[in-house]
Amino acid sequence: MTTTIVSTVELPDKARELLRNYDIDLYELPRLSKDEWTDVLSRTEVLMCWCGREFNLADNINSMKRLKVIQTYSAGVDHLPFSVIPSNIEVYSNAGAYSVPVAEHAWAMILTLAKGLHKPVLNAKDYLGNEITSPRKIIESILLVLGTGGIGKEIARIGKEGFRTHNIGINRSGKSAEYFDEVYPTSKLLDALPRADIVAITLPLNKHTRGLIGKEELRALKRGAIVVNVGRGDVVKEEDLYEVLKERQDIRFGTDVWWVHNDHEEIPPRTPLITLPNFLGTPHIAGGAQMEIAEYAMIRAVENVIRYIKGEIPMNRVNRDDYV
Amino acid sequence: MTTTIVSTVELPDKARELLRNYDIDLYELPRLSKDEWTDVLSRTEVLMCWCGREFNLADNINSMKRLKVIQTYSAGVDHLPFSVIPSNIEVYSNAGAYSVPVAEHAWAMILTLAKGLHKPVLNAKDYLGNEITSPRKIIESILLVLGTGGIGKEIARIGKEGFRTHNIGINRSGKSAEYFDEVYPTSKLLDALPRADIVAITLPLNKHTRGLIGKEELRALKRGAIVVNVGRGDVVKEEDLYEVLKERQDIRFGTDVWWVHNDHEEIPPRTPLITLPNFLGTPHIAGGAQMEIAEYAMIRAVENVIRYIKGEIPMNRVNRDDYV
Repeated sequence: MTTTIVSTVELPDKARELLRNYDIDLYELPRLSKDEWTDVLSRTEVLMCWCGREFNLADNINSMKRLKVIQTYSAGVDHLPFSVIPSNIEVYSNAGAYSVPVAEHAWAMILTLAKGLHKPVLNAKDYLGNEITSPRKIIESILLVLGTGGIGKEIARIGKEGFRTHNIGINRSGKSAEYFDEVYPTSKLLDALPRADIVAITLPLNKHTRGLIGKEELRALKRGAIVVNVGRGDVVKEEDLYEVLKERQDIRFGTDVWWVHNDHEEIPPRTPLITLPNFLGTPHIAGGAQMEIAEYAMIRAVENVIRYIKGEIPMNRVNRDDYV
Repeated sequence: MTTTIVSTVELPDKARELLRNYDIDLYELPRLSKDEWTDVLSRTEVLMCWCGREFNLADNINSMKRLKVIQTYSAGVDHLPFSVIPSNIEVYSNAGAYSVPVAEHAWAMILTLAKGLHKPVLNAKDYLGNEITSPRKIIESILLVLGTGGIGKEIARIGKEGFRTHNIGINRSGKSAEYFDEVYPTSKLLDALPRADIVAITLPLNKHTRGLIGKEELRALKRGAIVVNVGRGDVVKEEDLYEVLKERQDIRFGTDVWWVHNDHEEIPPRTPLITLPNFLGTPHIAGGAQMEIAEYAMIRAVENVIRYIKGEIPMNRVNRDDYV
């Protein structure tokens, strides 16, 4: 049986090529007229989407009677309207597609903050004597990574191989992971935080991780800790973060991800975080840096869909109990 | 025979302890009255100094009739008044004492510049679409290091192990060095520059390296190259750098070292480099970050002096033909 696949964006040539040898009908929505959409969506078995602003899934899902699979191009799926997605539809994320660029960005923020490059001054005495800029050493420091998935592992690898860090991981079960010297379940977070020189947050946003980092966790940080968030903004409580960063200037905090209000990641955020000298922000660009990254992500998504077409088990199946 | 050793600064306890078992008289100038200086200097066999602002070597060398060894606490010796130092006095530098913190600082500048963190903007489109901030990938890039000594090797190691870089080294002879995939003599510099995604300058300043990087070399850089200088400012021609950075906004340049005029490293420099958006500067703080680094450097210097006391050959003998 021919499988009808729809992508909500145009695919790179390489991705189309991968699909050529399979019994499929491939449609890319930007190449169709709006009139053709209705017919195509009614036949769609596999939907590939960012399911962000380019395609409103909630508005369209009722007309997709034959839909069996949603494959996202994004690594996170926290923005999907799970409550309106029928339970017989499987959702697969693109977790891991952005591991390398996001881990590089995380390390760039860590080193920028560690060496005071976020607010450099040209007077050596001021630079060295200032809590905001005084350089901190990285080599052999203790790195705590929240989340031991693709991004977390790559951050741990760079730390261990490049800077001889001792790596502590936190994940849901506490099961061991490559490049980590120790791994604990989330319940042990408060024991791990005071040990860390560097903390990297790579967690997806779901009902277990939302607001995981609040005042108590932030106040448990070691003096002089560096924290970066490349997971999702709402893993950290915004008001709590602002309050603790204001009272503890020794903590330096960098984020590429922000807080969502009304389905919208607001940059700048509602609190005056960006005015704090111990805060560094970038506008959610870690994963979307270059065309080649987006292409790689789409190709990976297509490869996962091919697993489905071949009757294999696709990767990154989303457990919707984590979200609803 | 008792050896008289003078340090121009107070030593950390650990360094004094190292010297305890040897037949020496140790004097620390800040603990002496100015009246005692004359007598002590006249008996000094080994001088340990920064020989910067804390001790004017040119003014004092004539009264140090028994001086045989100058051991610097600094890694570079380009500031020493070689023309007034009698030729029977051996000079030893502290090369290598700052390799780890300086290499970390070099990588911090590389990543800051690569990910646009030196001028971050909060609008994603502006960030990604702007030549000044658009993120560049690091993994598997080509890293060219000028100088394959302690700092150069550590920069190469972090690149290779942390970011899978392909490492090209440049040194005087072209002899191979650990962590480098290829090494060429300085005469091949112009062939290597167009290949590099990242260039790290770690060269000491001497008559062979002064002004090595001028317009021709800078214009030979690959589009989008990232260059950092943690060696000495005057290895690069300041006016040429300003001119090329102004005409080529694709190049991003970071420096921790500056240009010397009248024996003084001038920060900010004479050209308006610091106004350029593709320039990042820190005030020569890479090596002097924390007390522990300065202590480590002094201990290393003392260990080298102990080699001399024991009749061994000290490390880092300075070839003064490189400087005069």
